[in-house]
Amino acid sequence: MTDWFDALSLRGPADLGFINGGLDRTALRRDDLAWQHIAYNAPGTQILVLCQDTPILKWDGSKLSSTFKLSEAQALGAATDIVFLGMENGRSCFAHQLAADLFPSLKARPDLKLIDMRSIAMQALFDQSRTSALGTAKSLLSWHARHRFCSACGQASAATSAGWKRRCTVCGVEHFPRTDPVVIMLAVRGDVCLMGRAPQFPEGRYSCLAGFLEPGETIEEAVRREIHEEAGIKVGRVRYMQAQPWPFPSSLMIGCIAEALTSDITVDPAELADARWFTRAEVAAILENTHAGGVNSPPRMAIANHIMDLFVRA
Amino acid sequence: MTDWFDALSLRGPADLGFINGGLDRTALRRDDLAWQHIAYNAPGTQILVLCQDTPILKWDGSKLSSTFKLSEAQALGAATDIVFLGMENGRSCFAHQLAADLFPSLKARPDLKLIDMRSIAMQALFDQSRTSALGTAKSLLSWHARHRFCSACGQASAATSAGWKRRCTVCGVEHFPRTDPVVIMLAVRGDVCLMGRAPQFPEGRYSCLAGFLEPGETIEEAVRREIHEEAGIKVGRVRYMQAQPWPFPSSLMIGCIAEALTSDITVDPAELADARWFTRAEVAAILENTHAGGVNSPPRMAIANHIMDLFVRA
Repeated sequence: MTDWFDALSLRGPADLGFINGGLDRTALRRDDLAWQHIAYNAPGTQILVLCQDTPILKWDGSKLSSTFKLSEAQALGAATDIVFLGMENGRSCFAHQLAADLFPSLKARPDLKLIDMRSIAMQALFDQSRTSALGTAKSLLSWHARHRFCSACGQASAATSAGWKRRCTVCGVEHFPRTDPVVIMLAVRGDVCLMGRAPQFPEGRYSCLAGFLEPGETIEEAVRREIHEEAGIKVGRVRYMQAQPWPFPSSLMIGCIAEALTSDITVDPAELADARWFTRAEVAAILENTHAGGVNSPPRMAIANHIMDLFVRA
Repeated sequence: MTDWFDALSLRGPADLGFINGGLDRTALRRDDLAWQHIAYNAPGTQILVLCQDTPILKWDGSKLSSTFKLSEAQALGAATDIVFLGMENGRSCFAHQLAADLFPSLKARPDLKLIDMRSIAMQALFDQSRTSALGTAKSLLSWHARHRFCSACGQASAATSAGWKRRCTVCGVEHFPRTDPVVIMLAVRGDVCLMGRAPQFPEGRYSCLAGFLEPGETIEEAVRREIHEEAGIKVGRVRYMQAQPWPFPSSLMIGCIAEALTSDITVDPAELADARWFTRAEVAAILENTHAGGVNSPPRMAIANHIMDLFVRA
């Protein structure tokens, strides 16, 4: 009998960002208004607070905290959106969005720190579960901020289901939070792999190629199309490795290894500043930050780093 | 060295619907208006035509055809949306959406057949590549129909990039076609697997559990949450098997096998009419339509059938 699960662990890598969420989303309670009211007002309830897509953190001079009591959160400002994230050890967790114009005054306060989501994950300021909750809050709140109106009729929509749905106030159409699947992959050919650099990358940075999966594509088809579009390489088989939620604003990174069938690179200049083949030894040096040519990799919190690492260790 | 690709083939199953698309999407030409104009008007260009989410097919009394010449497509009615799907053997392929009120008169014509997308896939009326193109057209055109307005400001948006983008005519925000990842999975425990039936299923139908992946989740986390929510079963490891685009209206089905850690089922009555364990022998009988209890499976064109089949053959 097949062991479906050989070599796959329950948890992904311990230093990959935004995975291993610990909240029980308790989705069955989202439409239970009475339950929501009690949970929101319970003394142990924890509130994550964001403003302009940035988590507001409590700072006592030595320690950062990502959660506020309800009264503390309300004192920071009125929530323009509230989302129920779930429960952990009997305590509910909600997220508040604050009006964008509060940002400067909050930023000036000595008892708060406003640290962008990418830095929080990169510096691993919190454990994986809390970083996952912050990322989820960011994705949901940014969806609300960009979906105040019904795309079907143009009239105002309103949040419902504890923040997991919006309904048009006029035509009644329901809208659900959006998650955009993205394929991110290393094309490999024997001892070399294909990496590229986007024009906006930091100096020396090379990474896996990536792109949005389009309607009508399988994961494997999207991998093949993206690699061919961006670098002119033909791809055969594709293997899924690991996924990562990526709250910028709300993607699902689907990490894959792809089998390159050709070698001649033709870069699409609209997408990439460069693409080239790297040997396994070079990728190892890049990950250790000792590459002779000064090439560097995305941080450990990003799935690209882990796909590169898998290639090195294969 | 790891063989990343052991046991994985380039193409998925030959009877799975909506996979193995054969069009080169030629995405680099989407913003090239001059190129688009020439391609659209070229004599060999093929047009898929949809009305009310339903493909319009040509019928000569013995043979169905899914494509029209431009002049033929225009004679059916003015296109409310036009999308460039890609190229195949040097010929371009576009899709037209017709106004919904044309449906009855088109339906009445003896030289046309209007067959819904699900039936087209189920009966395999066309090869996989053409079914994939029709599904892609359906997903894109239905996205346009439901996104005439900017979700950020409520004003009208307009299609651009050959139908792969909409831009707000007032605030300028760009909107991209949406693809909703869905996890669909069989929880297995030794010789048995967990299947459920939704209230709207045909009589006797049991299938894999499934649900939308939510913002902030990995594929594996979504699988665990859905199985626990719908059936109360705890899940350990998860293995990705195969994906399938599902144009109803625009999902990506991510097929997985999950390791069940518990046995006692608690059905969520809001989601399922029933859920129970089936032995490998039972699932084999279900797939052969010889199950003693009259249980039947989704058709071969659906990924659930293939996941069940993998379990039987494991």
